[in-house]
Formats: sequence, C-alpha cells, structure tokens
Amino acid sequence: MSRDLSVGLLALLLAVTATAPASAQQPQKPNVVFILADNVGYGDLGSYGGGELRGAPTPRLDQLAREGLRLTQYLVEPGCTPSRAALMTGQYSIRSGLSLVALEGTPNTLSARAFTMGELFKGAGYATAIFGKWHLGGEPQSLPTAHGFDEFYGIPPNISWDSATYVSSMDLTHSVAATPAELLARGPQIVEATAGGALRAVKPFTPEVRANIDYELVDKSIDFMRRQKAAGKPFFLYLPFSMGHVPNLPSAQFKGKSRIGNYGDKIMEGDYHVGQILDTLKELGVDDSTIVVFASDNGPFGQAGREFGNDGTPDMGNSGPFRGELGEVTEGAIRTAAFVRWPGKVQPNTTSYAMFSIMDFMPTFAHIVGGTMPTDRPIDGVDQTDVLLGNSAAGHRESLLSFIGADLVAARWKQWRIYFTDIHPTGDGPQREPGVFSASAPMAGYPKVYNIEMDPHEDLIVGGVFAWVSDPALKPVFEYLETVKKYPNPPAPNITQFHGGRG
Amino acid sequence: MSRDLSVGLLALLLAVTATAPASAQQPQKPNVVFILADNVGYGDLGSYGGGELRGAPTPRLDQLAREGLRLTQYLVEPGCTPSRAALMTGQYSIRSGLSLVALEGTPNTLSARAFTMGELFKGAGYATAIFGKWHLGGEPQSLPTAHGFDEFYGIPPNISWDSATYVSSMDLTHSVAATPAELLARGPQIVEATAGGALRAVKPFTPEVRANIDYELVDKSIDFMRRQKAAGKPFFLYLPFSMGHVPNLPSAQFKGKSRIGNYGDKIMEGDYHVGQILDTLKELGVDDSTIVVFASDNGPFGQAGREFGNDGTPDMGNSGPFRGELGEVTEGAIRTAAFVRWPGKVQPNTTSYAMFSIMDFMPTFAHIVGGTMPTDRPIDGVDQTDVLLGNSAAGHRESLLSFIGADLVAARWKQWRIYFTDIHPTGDGPQREPGVFSASAPMAGYPKVYNIEMDPHEDLIVGGVFAWVSDPALKPVFEYLETVKKYPNPPAPNITQFHGGRG
Repeated sequence: MSRDLSVGLLALLLAVTATAPASAQQPQKPNVVFILADNVGYGDLGSYGGGELRGAPTPRLDQLAREGLRLTQYLVEPGCTPSRAALMTGQYSIRSGLSLVALEGTPNTLSARAFTMGELFKGAGYATAIFGKWHLGGEPQSLPTAHGFDEFYGIPPNISWDSATYVSSMDLTHSVAATPAELLARGPQIVEATAGGALRAVKPFTPEVRANIDYELVDKSIDFMRRQKAAGKPFFLYLPFSMGHVPNLPSAQFKGKSRIGNYGDKIMEGDYHVGQILDTLKELGVDDSTIVVFASDNGPFGQAGREFGNDGTPDMGNSGPFRGELGEVTEGAIRTAAFVRWPGKVQPNTTSYAMFSIMDFMPTFAHIVGGTMPTDRPIDGVDQTDVLLGNSAAGHRESLLSFIGADLVAARWKQWRIYFTDIHPTGDGPQREPGVFSASAPMAGYPKVYNIEMDPHEDLIVGGVFAWVSDPALKPVFEYLETVKKYPNPPAPNITQFHGGRG
Repeated sequence: MSRDLSVGLLALLLAVTATAPASAQQPQKPNVVFILADNVGYGDLGSYGGGELRGAPTPRLDQLAREGLRLTQYLVEPGCTPSRAALMTGQYSIRSGLSLVALEGTPNTLSARAFTMGELFKGAGYATAIFGKWHLGGEPQSLPTAHGFDEFYGIPPNISWDSATYVSSMDLTHSVAATPAELLARGPQIVEATAGGALRAVKPFTPEVRANIDYELVDKSIDFMRRQKAAGKPFFLYLPFSMGHVPNLPSAQFKGKSRIGNYGDKIMEGDYHVGQILDTLKELGVDDSTIVVFASDNGPFGQAGREFGNDGTPDMGNSGPFRGELGEVTEGAIRTAAFVRWPGKVQPNTTSYAMFSIMDFMPTFAHIVGGTMPTDRPIDGVDQTDVLLGNSAAGHRESLLSFIGADLVAARWKQWRIYFTDIHPTGDGPQREPGVFSASAPMAGYPKVYNIEMDPHEDLIVGGVFAWVSDPALKPVFEYLETVKKYPNPPAPNITQFHGGRG
C-alpha cells in the first residue's frame, strides 16, 4: 500500500507539471477505460447467465463484474451507429441524425457541431484515444480526431467489422469490372489519425486482419496507457473492439476454443483481451485509480447470423430471457450487459436494477471528472453517479424512448414497454387477435403495452388491462417532442422511403 | 465457537443416548432440510437472473445461494408427480409407474415396494418429516408415513395445490347434486399421519387454507426441528411447500407485495418462509451442521396460467433463456433452480455447471449420511458428493432421459438435446420445413437434435449437421432399455390412449 501511495504521489507530481490548472490539493482524476463490445446480448456473459452455459466461459469478465457494479437494466439504442452516437453525445441518436445503422453509401454522418465524450474528456485535461470502430462517419468533420480524441486507429470510421468481407462478396457479384486485387485496394482500409489530422490508410481490411484486429487494438491501447502513465496524464481510453460482431472470425489462438463456434470463440477472445487491459492497469499501478466500464452496444445479432453459419453453430448472440435482436426495439434488442469497476468508490460484487441508458455515461463522467456538458442543446442522458456510488437504488431515470430512422417507435417507462408500431406477435392470446389490443393487426391507433417484469419475452399484450400506462409512458414522448420544437433535429436517416424524392 | 462446540457435544451425548448404534467417535450426522418449491422456473429467482428483475425480489434465497453452491444445470422430470417420484426414489419416475402428473381419479400410485428418501434417512438413524405436498398417492401403501417418514401434515397426498379450488369450480358444474357445504365436506381435506398410521382429515382444503398453507407448514417444520434438536437426533425435514404452484393465492401478509401479481407475491412469500427456516436453524445453533437444499421440482406453469389470471398478471413462472414449460420436455420444462448450503463443506459463493439430476440427491445423501441404497432395482441417480464438495467440475452424469407417460420422448447428452417425438417448432429455418430434419412434420423416423448451449431457446434444429450426436445420445437410451428387460416397469400411467380397453 505504501509503495502504491508513493507511485500515486509521483503521478500526481507529474500531473501537476503536465497540466496547468491542476493544484496540489486536487486529487488525481481517475483514468477511464471504456471497453465497448459489439452486439453482445444480455444472455451471453457469465455474469448474466451465459459464459460457461453458452459454451464460452468468460472468467476475466466475470471477475471484473464481481469487482464492481453490474447493471441489470442497462438500455441502449437498437444498433451500432445509434448506440455509439448516444454514447458519444449523451443524446438520442436521432438528434444527431444517426438513428439508423450507417451502411456504406448512407449520407448521414456526425456533424461538426456535435459535442462528444472525446471533447468532454479533452476539456477536462485528459489524454484521449479511440482504438476500433467509430461508426459515426468518415467525413473530415465527423472523425473522432475532429471530436476530442488525440489518437485513432481502427476500421473505416463510417462502417463496421463486416466490411472485412466486402471484397470477397463483391467478387461474387456478376460482371464486377475489377480484379480482386483492385477491389482490395479500393475496398475498406484500416486507418489511423491524430487530432485534427487527416485519415491515413494503413492496410486493406481483410478477413485475416479482421480475425486479429483486437490484438492490434489492445496493443495500441496498452501502448497508449503506458505513455500516459509515463507522462502522468489522466487518460480516457475508448476501446470499441470487435467482440461479438459478425463475422466473428476467430484468431488462431482462440479458434475452436468455445463449444459454439466462431461466436463463442470471439467471446472468449474478448474475455482474454479485457484481461490484457486489466493486467496492464495493474502492472502500471493504476488499477485503483481507473474506472473500467465494460458494456455492449446493443442486443445480439440474431437469426441473420445463420448466413454467417459455421457448421450448425451460427454466428448468433443470445438475449437471455428477453425477446428480440438488434435492429428492432424489443427488450432483447435494447437491453444488454454493462458493468463498472472503480475500486474504493463503486461497491464490489453489487448489482443495480436502476434503469441506466448508454446516454447516461456522458453526464455521469462529466460529474466525476469535472467536465462540462454543453447547454445549447438537449441532453437526454442523466447523471447517474448516485447509481455507481450506491447512493440510489432506482437511479435518476424512469423512461427511455426508442427510435428507428425518423420514427419514435417505442418507450420504456419503469417496467412497462409501450410500442407505437406494429409488433410481430409471439405467444398466444389477444396479441394474435385482431382489434384494439392486437399486436399483429395493422396499427389500430392505440399503443401496444407489455410488462417486461411479468413477461420478459413479450408474449402477452396487456394494454387492455393497463390502459393507464399510456399516461406516464406518453409523458416522456411529449416532453421529447417539446424539445424538438425548440431544437429541431437534423434530417433523420432514411434509406427506404423516397416517395418520388427525398425530403 | 467454543459455545457452539459445547452445544454440539451435548447434542452428541443426547444422540448417543437416543440412538443405540452411535459411538462417541462418530461425528454427528448433518441434518438435512430439503425445501422443494413448486413450478418455479429457471428464470424466477434473483440468483438466476429473476427476483427483482421479475418484480419479485428474493433476498433470503439469493443470500442462501451465495452461502452455498448454485447448480446451473439441475435437471428434473417435467411435472410434479414424476419429479417427486424421482426425488424420493432416485429412479426415473417411470420405474414407479408415475411418469405423468397424478390427477384426481388416476390409478397410478407409489407401490409398497418403493424405497424412498424417507426410508433412506430413517435407516440412517434420522428423525424424518414431510410437511406439504406428497403427490405420489393416497393409498395406505403409498403414504409418506408408509415410506420412512415419521410425520406428515399436508394436502391430499394424491393431488396438488389447485385442489383448493375444486369445490368452487365443481359448484359451477351443471346439475351437481350437492350443496357447496356438502361438496366441501366431501372435497379435498388437509390431512395428517404418523409412521404406519392412518390418514386423518384435519379440515377442508379451501382457498383460504391454500393462501396460508405455507405458514402452517413452516410452523410444523420449526416445531419438528426444535423437537429433534431437543432430542439430540439428526433430522431430515422434507418441505415441499406451495411456492410457485397455481393458484398462487397470496397470504394477507404478501398480497400485492410483488409487481407481477399473485405469482410474484407467492415467490416473495416463499422467500420469507425460507428465511424463517434459516433463522430457526441459526437460533437452534445447528445451521453449521445442517445441509440446506432449495430446489424446484420442474419448469414453470406457462400460458395456461392465464386462466388463473389476475388482471393482466397471470399466474405464470419464467424459464429464463430456455424454451418451454412444465408438462413438455423442453429445456425450460426440465431445468430449473437448485442450490445447496453446507457450511464448512460446500464452498460458498460458487456455481456448478455439472449436470445434476433430481434423482442424484438420493445416492448423494446416502453417501453423506451413511445410508444404504437398495441393490435389487436399478438406481438412475448417481452419487454427486464430488460436485457438492467442489471435487468435480463436470460431475458424474453426462446424460438424462425424459419420459412422458409410457414414452421415452427425449434425452440430454452433454449440451445436446435430442427428441424422439415431434416438436412444435419455434424460430425459422429447417425445423419448419418438411423432411428428415423437420421438427414440425410428423416424426420422420429420425430424432431431432438441438444444442442448448448454442441455442438455449431451441429455435434451431441441427441434426443435419450433428448426425454423430445420435450415437452418444442413444447410448443411455439403450442402456436404460436393457435395465427394463431385467427389471420390467409397472404399467405406465395412461389416461389418454384406451384403444377399446386398457393394457
């Protein structure tokens, strides 16, 4: 302990030298390591009833969860781009025009005006880096290095991990007028950038690179942490790595290690990489002064993963007791795993059932690290420091809206789930019958109500009994609509409804 | 500690006086308290991802689980009578002719020749009692008090908790030639008996009695434990209480306490009752020398629970990530919650993924308490002491068969699930298509294979890819069939197929 203390004092001294406004009275700001998994479902990790039971043990992650607070009602947006926009801005993604997953060729991209978590930490005196997948746009004004991040290394910032297979599937396309080598040269590239600089192509993003990308990202992360430790600078490391995202091409080290094929292999590999990060924090003597968050971005890739099948064990995650998969706004799509370790501050071996949105991280970090949130725009995230510190069981959120493209399609209010769209029905009963409380008939003008405590799998529509729920559940909707009047949204992403002309 | 020791020595002295064959060198045998919940699903309790998340916190049970070993692959039979027969005999229920839930008027009942867990403990020098639901028959030769139990108090031993509503639903029947009072007098009765004695009716089993029955059963249990402690006799308390079984009529103390209606209220009440038992063990100073098992008997009562609906929160349990409900042999029907506390022997705060059948308790207890299993019949349970003591991660079981009535309908072998019957398909894909690997077409002559690690909800039939699984999965089937040649089963229960005449 005394050795740790002296190291801490040395770090503090260095910090005083390095950052002008710090005073000797101020405690060193905690480092923050935010590890974002990709399409890992509520039921995939050991601490959420998966792991060994899914044929893919996750011992390091389970240990991390035990050393901190595990959130059991962590809510996200239903896709990579939307969730990442929400995480980075503390706002619903639709306020950034990013409420659909960005695909190759879609025009929506993060605006220059966006204020991101990178800018928050930068403004609070942190060294900042992102290694992995940005997925908020590749335009110069949209890059992470245009939004507070000192360093970026990763896949093309406008698309996702599956772009590693674009060239091989393009090559299957009739009368493609290019050789594979030409396609590769023009195809997705691993890129890097530093603050304010241009994007530089490093190498083609091939399936081989995909299989090993997380090793690269973790190496970059370790190097970054070492450098900041040496410089005595608090750091914010954002590591949106590939664990869980199709195609989960396994590295040689983990191929065949799980009992469920590629998906499980990659989960186990991710577990190992998290261990590397944790080991580094310990080795650097900063594990006690570092907040580590592990979270997923949205629910699992579901049955579509069969098309990435590998001999009867398709590339599919699991949403535990909940219904659905990413892309829709069912509970399984927007509820997933997240836990937070902060030694001495966050009580170990605890869980919280507080409703906690991915948007809440930003105001919470602002509180913790003394950052400043913008006041010229609506912030949908709320400060949940009280949840992390164990001062509030219910937390400061009781509702969450879900958007797809231009549409507000669902809301959660406490345990109630209310849809403003038609639902493909499961189960038997009234939701399969036509009429006011049907899920399957075309929208009858009434919202569709489920109780996800009573009925985690959403098999039983109960709007007929709980008609009063529309009142509190619609309240955040109307409040949101008021904010849009004051702060109009940019055009929402739209790649399906053209009506003869956009707009 | 020293006070505990002297109490222990006193108890030992008393034990020496009370039971002839004990010697001063022998350590006191551990008491065993086996609490059996009823139709509680894999996903209902806090330690299995339910509790608070199901709107029904279970703090005492969660604490009990943390103090012991939690089984994550505890397997049962798909109904009350079958599971209880398996628990009591260490054999598949079909070997006792009890492979269907006993309903009023069904002829199958436990035979005089059965050797039960009651007889096992009795033979090992224990005081024995059962308070609650026996459900193995009400004939004199079938009673618990004819099978090793000193004391019995509970509901009619041939039927279940829902019999409390028989009179009111009989009263709805056209031209019933009896007044409600007459029906009540002739209807199900709370009964009691002592070893070898006749059954005595105590009072009619009314809905009011149903609502409060677990208080009675726990009071009887506490009184029993106190008496045995005073007598210095090791005890086996079997408490098959009503927590979880329709109709979950709540007691006044718990009515409205949960957020999901009667089911949750009764779960919370059960949690409280378990706390009463644990508090008593502590108060008596025997909690360190008592094995406490909490287990459910089978998966949850599912959508049929809507007919016991109470305003949109029907009387339904939850099977977590698994598919199905009691009565069928899906994973959710035969996999549920169980944990074991044994201070100083069973490592606290651990889980085991070992496959552990409800039949395994009997040989395991035989090992632990020095009891003797019969050798003149096949015993399907295996000694899993190694699992409890943390000496074996995988345990001593790798397969389990499932029966319904006369039919062997499914097997588990490791993570593979193989059906010998048609399955109502869920999900999309080959199981919905006709042909060899269909689940929905009438049985094509091939078993249907699922991987419950890859696909906990059984949405994806994979027999086409994993054809080799039929070899190891059929092995226990053929082994079982060999034992039946040597030890023929009694007639299986059959209340649907008469073909013009039974037999």
